[in-house]
Amino acid sequence: MISVSEAIEKVTTYLYKGIPKAIAIDKGLHYILASDVFAEIDMPPFPQSAMDGYAICGNKELIYTIIGEVKAGDSKQFVLKNGEAVRIFTGAPVPKTATAVIMQEKTSVIKNQLKIEETPLQKQNIRSRGEQIKKGSLAMAKGQKLSPSAISFLVSLGITTVQVYPKPKVAIVVTGNELIQIGERLAYGKIYESNSILLARTLEQEGIKSINVHRVADNYEATVRLLKQVSMANDFVLVSGGISVGDYDFVGAALKELHIEEIFYKVKQKPGKPLFFGKQNGTFIYALPGNPASTLTCFYMYALPMLRYYLGNDNPFLLRSQKTLVKEYEVKGVRAQFLKAIVANNMVTILTQQSSAMISGFIEANAYVYVPEFSNGVLQKNTLQEVIMLP
Amino acid sequence: MISVSEAIEKVTTYLYKGIPKAIAIDKGLHYILASDVFAEIDMPPFPQSAMDGYAICGNKELIYTIIGEVKAGDSKQFVLKNGEAVRIFTGAPVPKTATAVIMQEKTSVIKNQLKIEETPLQKQNIRSRGEQIKKGSLAMAKGQKLSPSAISFLVSLGITTVQVYPKPKVAIVVTGNELIQIGERLAYGKIYESNSILLARTLEQEGIKSINVHRVADNYEATVRLLKQVSMANDFVLVSGGISVGDYDFVGAALKELHIEEIFYKVKQKPGKPLFFGKQNGTFIYALPGNPASTLTCFYMYALPMLRYYLGNDNPFLLRSQKTLVKEYEVKGVRAQFLKAIVANNMVTILTQQSSAMISGFIEANAYVYVPEFSNGVLQKNTLQEVIMLP
Repeated sequence: MISVSEAIEKVTTYLYKGIPKAIAIDKGLHYILASDVFAEIDMPPFPQSAMDGYAICGNKELIYTIIGEVKAGDSKQFVLKNGEAVRIFTGAPVPKTATAVIMQEKTSVIKNQLKIEETPLQKQNIRSRGEQIKKGSLAMAKGQKLSPSAISFLVSLGITTVQVYPKPKVAIVVTGNELIQIGERLAYGKIYESNSILLARTLEQEGIKSINVHRVADNYEATVRLLKQVSMANDFVLVSGGISVGDYDFVGAALKELHIEEIFYKVKQKPGKPLFFGKQNGTFIYALPGNPASTLTCFYMYALPMLRYYLGNDNPFLLRSQKTLVKEYEVKGVRAQFLKAIVANNMVTILTQQSSAMISGFIEANAYVYVPEFSNGVLQKNTLQEVIMLP
Repeated sequence: MISVSEAIEKVTTYLYKGIPKAIAIDKGLHYILASDVFAEIDMPPFPQSAMDGYAICGNKELIYTIIGEVKAGDSKQFVLKNGEAVRIFTGAPVPKTATAVIMQEKTSVIKNQLKIEETPLQKQNIRSRGEQIKKGSLAMAKGQKLSPSAISFLVSLGITTVQVYPKPKVAIVVTGNELIQIGERLAYGKIYESNSILLARTLEQEGIKSINVHRVADNYEATVRLLKQVSMANDFVLVSGGISVGDYDFVGAALKELHIEEIFYKVKQKPGKPLFFGKQNGTFIYALPGNPASTLTCFYMYALPMLRYYLGNDNPFLLRSQKTLVKEYEVKGVRAQFLKAIVANNMVTILTQQSSAMISGFIEANAYVYVPEFSNGVLQKNTLQEVIMLP
């Protein structure tokens, strides 16, 4: 049995990133860049008008002869001589010899004669070529998460594919004879299985899509067979239940038979003490205790960081900070505790309901208060407590 | 031309929710409940053991006769008499006459005789029927967003379908002769179109999946034809570009020809002044200015709240707060401004780059500093500024 900080240190040791792959930029939402991206064009790619108005060529003149028109998207390149102007629109290419673009509201036109009100600044209302970014320069650094704005910026530079960290393939294995699926009749002694959907939707929320769910009865051979199969076919395996010390908890024995390398088993914490973390070849296997709040807590603290790092996130652990406790709370027992809590305005309130059998606390909680080992006693009101923010 | 606050007030007037629909609970991630949900069973549905150990029937006895075993999932119902016990496991149904469950670590067994160390508390380690929730009582209130924990809780109660607010059908229409698609050769005067992907991925991030993208050249008849078609087939239409006052901005004229009811046109703001918001039958139409930063700002401030409310979110506007300005900033012009900024630790820094032609600022920004009309002058360092957090 190890401490929470030792367990986190172990997880840190095994963090690894998925092997980068190329992806079409428009499919890239929320992926993380695995390589720097360089601009393939100047942006804007030509001197661009920032206004609807007139491009002029001149110094101090107030009267110009209009010789043509350039719309956005036109490829015709006028050569303006001194004293000449063209009608121009926002986004259109400005003739190279133009000295400025005058906003139409500040002009008057009689036939082909343009009159402007005052001498413009040099290059006024012209977005010069490469002003936003120059061809070949760094457009986006490795590690950037592809938000809508980031994707749209790369698309504006003509980038079609990018190198990103891949999404892992994750198996969820649910054990327990008492579990039936929603829609089935609830016989005496049975409950509706909800951990697979809890884990699957949490993974989905992290952007992971390749999720396969398996169910196995409390049967040794069937458990061995299934764990062998899923360990070979996935990057991560999340087992729920069957890892405690009961006579029908077969997961631990099955993991031994399969020679899964134990990284740690049991953490001095509440909830979620009987947690197993191990590996075989490239696959990491978590056996999470089956009480829903234990399952989710072990997942958040020890599995989610592995998954996030695999996805390219360099800061994969849940964020910690200090908040002021609104109401005193009595801590029982000597194990470290993750107490569901609500953080608002730099204050934190610990929820009354902390049963590991109930998931409902997580519906309103947005954080844990983390209580280290041997903190039994009363957490006093108005003291600073360590808080871990939930995703 | 109206002010920002008038425009927001107009949007508030037109907020409406989608017509609720039934959805399978496992497809419900991030949907919002449109009806209260009541528990269909007691949870737990039977008295449940919280431990691996022994269920006993007795008062002060320390010795019991073991008469059988109950595993998790067993439906066999023992009737314990005084002085009797059964071996029991976590999650298994506890015989109705049992007085307590004793954890196995605190027992010793010789043949069928169980010895316990001390008199247990009444009902110790027994989760009573309906302790978590009782059949028929409120399990989850209307308005709750379906997080993984919320879904898993409802599944544990046997809920198979829920009433939720639907996702809207949204059309994106991109106008402009200068726009070409990534992968195409960049001719002089052209740029890569990136607003459709900006809007589509932002919608996707909000959970909206039914998105159709259309492109139209700067041509009056084609614009009329397309806008007519998409207005009939969608809940919301987002047009990008063509709404300014240039001779080739056909969107405004097309909206008039189609008798789209104008709610407002032009807002005294920077960026994004030439914004149109209108409606026809049940469809709301936004014509967003085409500069990317203007497009996104108008979307965030006036379109996103309509969409979020449609999705069932009662607080659909971006959150506002006050933060301390890290570095002074000079405001030019009298229009209200949305300045891209970074908020960290209750402090806010306004980005140097604020061009409406550039989307790149939004990659690092996580907020706007909102500057009301007629605030031209210098925003002083260490003053409180109004901040609007980005999604």
